[in-house]
Amino acid sequence: MPGSEVYVGFDLGGSFLKASSFSLDGELAERRSIDSQWCLRPQDYLDLFKDAAKSLSSDKHLKGIGTAVAGVLDPEAGVIVDSPNLPALSGVPLLEMLKDSFAPIPLQMMNDANAAALGEYFAGAGVEHESMFIITLGTGVGGGFVVDGEIWSGASGMAGEIGHMVIEKNGKPCTCGSRGCLEAYFSGWALERDAKAHAQQYPDSAIGSLDIISPISLSELASSGDDEARTILENGGYALGAGIANIMNLLNPESIVLVGGLVNAKEHFLSFAQMAWEENSFDQASSSSKVFVGKLGEWAGVRGAIQPFLSE
Amino acid sequence: MPGSEVYVGFDLGGSFLKASSFSLDGELAERRSIDSQWCLRPQDYLDLFKDAAKSLSSDKHLKGIGTAVAGVLDPEAGVIVDSPNLPALSGVPLLEMLKDSFAPIPLQMMNDANAAALGEYFAGAGVEHESMFIITLGTGVGGGFVVDGEIWSGASGMAGEIGHMVIEKNGKPCTCGSRGCLEAYFSGWALERDAKAHAQQYPDSAIGSLDIISPISLSELASSGDDEARTILENGGYALGAGIANIMNLLNPESIVLVGGLVNAKEHFLSFAQMAWEENSFDQASSSSKVFVGKLGEWAGVRGAIQPFLSE
Repeated sequence: MPGSEVYVGFDLGGSFLKASSFSLDGELAERRSIDSQWCLRPQDYLDLFKDAAKSLSSDKHLKGIGTAVAGVLDPEAGVIVDSPNLPALSGVPLLEMLKDSFAPIPLQMMNDANAAALGEYFAGAGVEHESMFIITLGTGVGGGFVVDGEIWSGASGMAGEIGHMVIEKNGKPCTCGSRGCLEAYFSGWALERDAKAHAQQYPDSAIGSLDIISPISLSELASSGDDEARTILENGGYALGAGIANIMNLLNPESIVLVGGLVNAKEHFLSFAQMAWEENSFDQASSSSKVFVGKLGEWAGVRGAIQPFLSE
Repeated sequence: MPGSEVYVGFDLGGSFLKASSFSLDGELAERRSIDSQWCLRPQDYLDLFKDAAKSLSSDKHLKGIGTAVAGVLDPEAGVIVDSPNLPALSGVPLLEMLKDSFAPIPLQMMNDANAAALGEYFAGAGVEHESMFIITLGTGVGGGFVVDGEIWSGASGMAGEIGHMVIEKNGKPCTCGSRGCLEAYFSGWALERDAKAHAQQYPDSAIGSLDIISPISLSELASSGDDEARTILENGGYALGAGIANIMNLLNPESIVLVGGLVNAKEHFLSFAQMAWEENSFDQASSSSKVFVGKLGEWAGVRGAIQPFLSE
């Protein structure tokens, strides 16, 4: 019975393991988001993966498992080289461990930004576009350039780092040690930094009165009409737009797709981003590189993680 | 006699038509640089092309002509959409006119930056690298991304415009109408602007005493030890390096190749560019994306212009 065969996709971030089952032609069957914050050792993560795979494929034949992981991977060795959000897995040969746990089921692993890119390209906002640049807007900012269904990873797998594109030389310090990166102007951490600085300077302001200062609370405040919260998001949006203009002028992809948690605040920043990309790119580039918001939301990564099986 | 068959490559800029003949495997045979500043009408240019082709192939069988042109082309229609440096050819269907003049010899046309990119990729500094980003440093700054021997031109042919990459949002005004573009910090015109501003402010300085202020005279002054001339070139070099860092982080090509007239001043700017790209890119990116100076100099374009025949 072909209907009882499934692929399972995982997307492991700092707080949750997202897991979905898909039909063999990539249609979503089931999905769940599982707390992973209790995991302290690699074995804990393996147990989490095994339980999730079991519950998603209990009465089905599991044909392949694709895993997205937040971190820098060595794709050939299957090792997590570095992952600030998954410290217990840094240096761990996760792919081998998963293969041992799930043998003989075929396994694929990629980083989460690449997985989100493939998810949106094949099943989301990038469908029908030959070339797509994805921008992941979360605590940090990442990216990926997809052409003809392949991610352009570059000479050593470093391509796509739009978050660390200089948009203001000698500008604000970035977590990477450099200055003036896009991420230092628009990202979860940069918005939080700006909001906290504002709160410190104006403790009686609405921002200063927030219990928890985060991109979410800042966005909620902006939605309630607070001008200062709006200004922080709008300034960030303008910086994002300068980065988008650079992508338009440099790569002129058919689509530029925005994904990640910050997209939820788009009503506050997207029009300012558009102002910036229209001001800073050639008309011919901006009119042919269309900007979209991702369609799969936080579920792009699980869909992209199984793409290698569908593309075989 | 195979030895008597040749391709001819042209590269038409604002002041000169460069012309070369090549063997059928792309080896240079002869070359010449012909003054084109007297050309006022499209027909003048056609005469120039015909004379040059004739003299380069007088006793040989001309198998194909490849032409590079400084300007924005509509590659499908073969029309020069816009060319600030060749105003007489703006809007002219040059490819058709050349085909009429040279029929039945096969003809190819591309813009000069793309031609230089293909020249360096197949016969210059990019040989042995799968992916290359070329940066043309002249009066303006252009670029091109070559992967597997193909130029990535983007959704509407606009890709590669690194000169108009924002490296300082809301920064210096650029000729394109935007602000903060790389070209507004390092290009022939930007260096000239900075040198002239210096001369105006300090008329008694060495820069202020120059008869003609140009990138060449500025570079000569720097070579003679003038600190102020050096500083202008060094600051420009740092800006170039920020742009190079962005290419490393975003595309991580195997090679980044610098070409164009300004390369002659590399002793004054390249080490500052390197400082900037090392400061502003990930180590893993900068160590795998090697920066080279082009090997073909101003003759990359004529070599690239005939590449379509060699790749057939």
